[in-house]
Amino acid sequence: MDPDAVAKAFVEHYYSTFDNNRSNLGNLYQEASMLTFEGQKIQGSVNIVAKLTSLPFQQCKHSISTVDCQPSGPAGGMLVFVSGNLQLAGEQHALRFSQMFHLMPTPQGSFYVLNDVFRLNYA
Amino acid sequence: MDPDAVAKAFVEHYYSTFDNNRSNLGNLYQEASMLTFEGQKIQGSVNIVAKLTSLPFQQCKHSISTVDCQPSGPAGGMLVFVSGNLQLAGEQHALRFSQMFHLMPTPQGSFYVLNDVFRLNYA
Repeated sequence: MDPDAVAKAFVEHYYSTFDNNRSNLGNLYQEASMLTFEGQKIQGSVNIVAKLTSLPFQQCKHSISTVDCQPSGPAGGMLVFVSGNLQLAGEQHALRFSQMFHLMPTPQGSFYVLNDVFRLNYA
Repeated sequence: MDPDAVAKAFVEHYYSTFDNNRSNLGNLYQEASMLTFEGQKIQGSVNIVAKLTSLPFQQCKHSISTVDCQPSGPAGGMLVFVSGNLQLAGEQHALRFSQMFHLMPTPQGSFYVLNDVFRLNYA
């Protein structure tokens, strides 16, 4: 399958899950996974979901502007770099963000997120 | 050595080289290296340097706002996520950018850039 198509499908799945029910994102991470969220490092699926579900907003909607994808080396991994908007319920202006994912293949032929870095873009 | 310190040293070296003499950046890439620059994919050290040196500005100055670093898996690689400002000579406003690097160890105990994604942040 075309890596760009895999990356795009992953990104759509990730943000749609985030916007609908963040607690389901745990399936996409494993124990070795690491999230750096606005500079804070969090390791492991359970801790990452705890962080994402404790963010100080309930409803949100991600809109994707760009998705860049590259193979990440001989292990079959893939780097995905995303830019987009995050609209929080009740807020007038959307927030701009950049996020990168390092996806690694699973024995089942799918991918999990090994690395995840999220940053809001400040003007 | 502390990975965050390695990442910070790499970032300082990279942008200082970029701002002083972009053609020297070739030492940091190898043939397998890939750069995605504003959506355009370029492979290999020679092609990457050709792209960077042909950008339509001469003098520039990068200022770094944030550097996030994570180990990228068992091969000893490192992911580095940077946000910052790019000031072009003669331009009033700096451009905001986000960039990620996937660094891989060399047999000499240094690192080279396997993956590089650069995006300007649009408001």
